Amino acid sequence: MNRINQLLGTRHPVVQGGMVWCSGWRLASAVSQAGGLGLLGAGSMHPETLREHIRRCRQATQAPFGVNIPLMYPQIEEIMQLVADEGVRIVFTSAGSPAKWTGWLKERGITVVHVVSSSRFARKAEEAGVDAVVAEGFEAGGHNGREETTTLCLVPAVCSAVSIPVIAAGGIATGRAIRAMQILGAEGVQIGTRFALTEESSASEAFKLRCLDLNEGDTMLMLKKLAPARLVKNAFSDQVRTAEAAGASEEELRQLLGRGRAKLGIFEGELEEGELEIGQAASQLRGKGIQTVAQVMRELIDDYNASAQ
Amino acid sequence: MNRINQLLGTRHPVVQGGMVWCSGWRLASAVSQAGGLGLLGAGSMHPETLREHIRRCRQATQAPFGVNIPLMYPQIEEIMQLVADEGVRIVFTSAGSPAKWTGWLKERGITVVHVVSSSRFARKAEEAGVDAVVAEGFEAGGHNGREETTTLCLVPAVCSAVSIPVIAAGGIATGRAIRAMQILGAEGVQIGTRFALTEESSASEAFKLRCLDLNEGDTMLMLKKLAPARLVKNAFSDQVRTAEAAGASEEELRQLLGRGRAKLGIFEGELEEGELEIGQAASQLRGKGIQTVAQVMRELIDDYNASAQ
Repeated sequence: MNRINQLLGTRHPVVQGGMVWCSGWRLASAVSQAGGLGLLGAGSMHPETLREHIRRCRQATQAPFGVNIPLMYPQIEEIMQLVADEGVRIVFTSAGSPAKWTGWLKERGITVVHVVSSSRFARKAEEAGVDAVVAEGFEAGGHNGREETTTLCLVPAVCSAVSIPVIAAGGIATGRAIRAMQILGAEGVQIGTRFALTEESSASEAFKLRCLDLNEGDTMLMLKKLAPARLVKNAFSDQVRTAEAAGASEEELRQLLGRGRAKLGIFEGELEEGELEIGQAASQLRGKGIQTVAQVMRELIDDYNASAQ
Repeated sequence: MNRINQLLGTRHPVVQGGMVWCSGWRLASAVSQAGGLGLLGAGSMHPETLREHIRRCRQATQAPFGVNIPLMYPQIEEIMQLVADEGVRIVFTSAGSPAKWTGWLKERGITVVHVVSSSRFARKAEEAGVDAVVAEGFEAGGHNGREETTTLCLVPAVCSAVSIPVIAAGGIATGRAIRAMQILGAEGVQIGTRFALTEESSASEAFKLRCLDLNEGDTMLMLKKLAPARLVKNAFSDQVRTAEAAGASEEELRQLLGRGRAKLGIFEGELEEGELEIGQAASQLRGKGIQTVAQVMRELIDDYNASAQ
């Protein structure tokens, strides 16, 4: 897994997913400090909040870190300029076309990695000039692709489609899953769920404890008429499920969703009415409790080494 | 991967999935002859047809083979008695509770393997006394679990839940995927899609060629209000999709489905009005054309060996 370490300046090719309401400077700096790549999740931050997190992250670690920017971010021009002004060296883009911003970022010497859910999008990202892609499968938490291709099927497809390095994402919470991804051709991994549930994550404790108590099947990809998202089943998701089964329109679902539900669920810990974004891999963490990032990284590496054949 | 070879008497811990309209004696005997375990798919056979396939399979190979029996098979008592009378040594059961028939089969000295889609079902199967389980993920073709757990997340969960050997299924079409599953704890694999598209499969040539030309995202899990099934997108699936989006009831979907669509699609090659059951892994086979079972086994083994680290 050399090209990812070279590209990102990491000791371990382990990227922490940039996640709304979880990945502020505390989480990102802890992951970078532990040898992976921490990402600030701009998706849930106002521009000035992001600026503060970038500065605090830099104070907390000398190791490289990055910013994840969903390309449908409302003030996209402002946030891109801010990231460049603040001297951020690595940007992960997601949820949109990489054609518009990749060149602009690369001209400023910024490393660009784009998140894709298909080999077709991976090819487009490579054409747009990104340095690497994240191939994120159906089992990942939060927003997700429409084609529902799983990590096991997606990673080999993307690796065949592009020559830039591929970072596997979705369903990866253990060292042996990292090794499995390496065998499929990935040169790095992006881990969201496991880091979202650490001590350093800015998610509420209630959210973390709920997610650390999930069984298989307790998350589901829903809201497919809007943007598909993997959520924990709760009172809100029951309402969505009932509405969807009855043929609710896009507009009806949008009204049902309302605004601020991810914040309500993840950040404020309202477990029934909030949107609880987490991946299928959460059920593998039952009984672990809230760990520190350093503990998680140690376990990932130990398990990876133990899984050598 | 020793326990599976010991249990099944195979040289390679590779089981061919028992699939409707694909896996008659030609396919099963070819897989067994090549060192894997061939399975006759009873799901699409009348009892007397199955009897004939068992006898022809035995004439075609001295290697062990088995029969896959969906537990919702209408004449289940008759088919179980027939399998025992014909001296079948290995039965894979699926789509139902293993509690009723496992003891009956074991009393007759038959090895029993049950297909599960969750670690909860795996535990129940182990309690029922089965010798091994198949852990089949969301990406698999045809009928599928309701929880939508992917192979990458399911296999480690099932391996943690039971002490009997685990056979991984869903999304596995290459030797490197076999190795990845081994790293996750599986001791064998079950491969459906790739064998369904071989020369020896009894599916129509039109079905095989269509499936060998799929892109990612060309299959989808649908009919979730009935029994979820992964199907190729075509005119029939468009009708289902439209009906489901409009909130069609279980009864309406049952009428839309009608009877015999899997036979129409897979066996008769009616590509637009039939049900085309195939897994996500099909898109990894683009350009390969229709191969023989011997070629497939050779490629699986070579790729597995090449993926050693």
